[in-house]
Amino acid sequence: MSSPLEEVCAEVLKRVTPTATEKKKVLSLAKRLVEKVQEGAEEKGVEAEVRVEGSVAKNTWLRDCPEIDVFMRVPTSMPREAFGTVCLEIAKKATEGYRQIERFAEHPYLEAVTGDNVWVNVVPCYRVKRGGWISATDRTPFHTDYVKPLLDEQKSREVRLLKRFMKGVGVYGAEIKVGGFSGYLCELLVLNYGSFVEVLRSAADWKEGTTIDYERHYERKDDAKKLFQEPLVMVDPVDKKRNVAAAVRKEKLYEFIAASRAFLETPDQKFFYPPQTEALKQTELINKINSRGSVIVFISFEACPAVPDVLWGQLYRSQRALRKLIQRHDFTVLRDAVWSNEKNFNTFIFEVENRFLTNMKRHLGPPLRKREDCEKFLQKHAGAESKVSEPRVEGERWIVDKQRRYTDVVELLKEKLRDGGANVGLAEYVSKAVSESLKVMVNDEALNLYSGSPEFAKFLTEYLEGKPRWLVCV
Amino acid sequence: MSSPLEEVCAEVLKRVTPTATEKKKVLSLAKRLVEKVQEGAEEKGVEAEVRVEGSVAKNTWLRDCPEIDVFMRVPTSMPREAFGTVCLEIAKKATEGYRQIERFAEHPYLEAVTGDNVWVNVVPCYRVKRGGWISATDRTPFHTDYVKPLLDEQKSREVRLLKRFMKGVGVYGAEIKVGGFSGYLCELLVLNYGSFVEVLRSAADWKEGTTIDYERHYERKDDAKKLFQEPLVMVDPVDKKRNVAAAVRKEKLYEFIAASRAFLETPDQKFFYPPQTEALKQTELINKINSRGSVIVFISFEACPAVPDVLWGQLYRSQRALRKLIQRHDFTVLRDAVWSNEKNFNTFIFEVENRFLTNMKRHLGPPLRKREDCEKFLQKHAGAESKVSEPRVEGERWIVDKQRRYTDVVELLKEKLRDGGANVGLAEYVSKAVSESLKVMVNDEALNLYSGSPEFAKFLTEYLEGKPRWLVCV
Repeated sequence: MSSPLEEVCAEVLKRVTPTATEKKKVLSLAKRLVEKVQEGAEEKGVEAEVRVEGSVAKNTWLRDCPEIDVFMRVPTSMPREAFGTVCLEIAKKATEGYRQIERFAEHPYLEAVTGDNVWVNVVPCYRVKRGGWISATDRTPFHTDYVKPLLDEQKSREVRLLKRFMKGVGVYGAEIKVGGFSGYLCELLVLNYGSFVEVLRSAADWKEGTTIDYERHYERKDDAKKLFQEPLVMVDPVDKKRNVAAAVRKEKLYEFIAASRAFLETPDQKFFYPPQTEALKQTELINKINSRGSVIVFISFEACPAVPDVLWGQLYRSQRALRKLIQRHDFTVLRDAVWSNEKNFNTFIFEVENRFLTNMKRHLGPPLRKREDCEKFLQKHAGAESKVSEPRVEGERWIVDKQRRYTDVVELLKEKLRDGGANVGLAEYVSKAVSESLKVMVNDEALNLYSGSPEFAKFLTEYLEGKPRWLVCV
Repeated sequence: MSSPLEEVCAEVLKRVTPTATEKKKVLSLAKRLVEKVQEGAEEKGVEAEVRVEGSVAKNTWLRDCPEIDVFMRVPTSMPREAFGTVCLEIAKKATEGYRQIERFAEHPYLEAVTGDNVWVNVVPCYRVKRGGWISATDRTPFHTDYVKPLLDEQKSREVRLLKRFMKGVGVYGAEIKVGGFSGYLCELLVLNYGSFVEVLRSAADWKEGTTIDYERHYERKDDAKKLFQEPLVMVDPVDKKRNVAAAVRKEKLYEFIAASRAFLETPDQKFFYPPQTEALKQTELINKINSRGSVIVFISFEACPAVPDVLWGQLYRSQRALRKLIQRHDFTVLRDAVWSNEKNFNTFIFEVENRFLTNMKRHLGPPLRKREDCEKFLQKHAGAESKVSEPRVEGERWIVDKQRRYTDVVELLKEKLRDGGANVGLAEYVSKAVSESLKVMVNDEALNLYSGSPEFAKFLTEYLEGKPRWLVCV
């Protein structure tokens, strides 16, 4: 008889593993794409080595979302600009008839979607020797070559389980928006720990700074730990100077740890396939917000022209700056979040204990033992206009009650963000968009945002619910 | 030409030094009292050595408030109870015709006031050898004998200045209510530093733990420092195990330090004779309270039958307990105070930022690295009724938003003090009085307290003003 854990894994495995027919279809599509890219390159006189990389090459893709990565390795003599010109043309030609999206992050490439909803990436990179990396994706073929011989059929299954689990609990993806675990990192984790369940068992005891060096590039783990600053360290087997887990943010690391513990405690398919959130009806939403007793401030703005990784980097940076601004003015932030449809609708959410603060603020002066500081303090505050009552000695220090400059968080935000808020730390693109289209709303004032976007409505519903969706299972 | 500092001191000296005629009058009254007590003792068959002690014996009393201490030193064979019986009878007889007040702290004695408003204390103590202390006042004659030969006319003047200064800035008096400097401590300070101004100059640089050992009872200052825990240490010249400054509370120490600095900076008679506070009119009071934006909570109760030192000890202890209670429930205390007429009218004042708090409270759970604590936390909070939203991982720890039990500080106080509040830490007598006559009022609800007592009105006016009265001079 199998355990509940084994049963859940067996069930999930059926859902994540492509059937033989499906595999064949994806692989033959991949093969056709390679040929087309090869032909295109030859036509343009580009001497390219064209290969399938990623999850399709390694047999670790998830059944419901196959994604074919076709890489064209070009000679190092080619100028970098060619990635965005001739390489892109080759990619476009090869995926003619598909929906095409040009991606221009630091590395230009083409994304395309087939009629069957298979995602295709055609990515240029340099054909370099190991260690001679020029562009960001030059390591990818080495990753494929490294992992492929080590992953047998059994290990591939474990990788699929782990990826699906990470998707389910919301920590999958190395893009800035998520700040989580890449597919390659999942593969290395399975290699290192042996199986999906063993990864979770170990993760349940991970700490900040946990370091894995599967290839033992470093004699002592501490050497690797010292080299990398990130919360989780996985030394890249093909490049000892690179941390495969560099993208994993602290929050995501801890969410994965918490989810691992919860799943091992109470195995459930919901970890892999969380129930869809149903957005609250407007009246429910208003009741829910009002019954909290807190105040939810929405700081929204429109188009912010930046590619997703840049946009999310700037959104998160701006979120931190806003949090500090609000806290510096003595409002208690209970929680905050940020939402973007990556097009024309962005909003920060700050939930504070009170919209209004009292006029009066207790201002700590220096301790009596610092005599010079005391003199300065008294010169500044005795008789000053901004005080409510004169300085006094309380315990071992001077104290004065002052008038507060901002007693309304909405007023504070409107005033500080009027000109875009660059000087309070909002990032460049965000600041520009804020200066053009800022709206500050409180509680049900944001109802039109809610009714205008089903995706945002779901997001806000989940926010109000608070818990990670997988906590249902605990 | 003399400096402003010298001028101020000279002026004050005129006001604090009794004239030759006044001295004569006080000294002859003291002599008469000694004779009367002596006679009374003989009549009762008590073999007492009767002497004048204190400021009159040492020529350090302040002109406007002479206080004659007559001590009767009785044999150690007398039972302690006799202090409250036969000794008291002797004292009463000797002060017949004066207004008499029996004092029954740990040491019973008689206070009497002559028709000319001279205060007289008749105090019994044991005639012991130095070091063989039995009752609390047995050291007093030794203090007199120690100080008298060291204080010449010049030093006496310096002591008078220091005492008046301490009275003026509110730190004079070793009784619990004040927690400040005794007369004997003032005398020792002048002996140690040489003059009034030198005491202030040194005090301006005092720190917590400053230790003075005038008789060099200890080889190293640190030995004395280690022996005593109080903020200021003055080793008693007649008893190396006693700290003459034991009564000085930290606040009073620092107030004296602050006042010393301010006076040296800007010498002014107002430090010695602060202007009388004029109580605000009722409408002014209400305006003043409302314009602060804070909330002032009055917790008042009636008769609390305890002698002043016991009463104030209990009031201060209860004040600390109430402060903790209020803070524990997340209200921000800006300032607090306590008032008593030592008869039938007592009130605590707590000034808080807000009377009401939001329903929702951010509750920090354990950090993820503490796995067992996390399990307990989730068991307790996931699905619990008191939460607003489910637990979530935030950064490195679990967080849950909870309902607050008390959102109104008045409701909190009324409920916790209904039965006297002994279980939240109110001291015995206070708790009893609170259980019988508690009133909790907010802002102008306390107007009838204000109009009912001119002394309280002055106190509250000073409280709202905030500053130490001597800060006027800075």
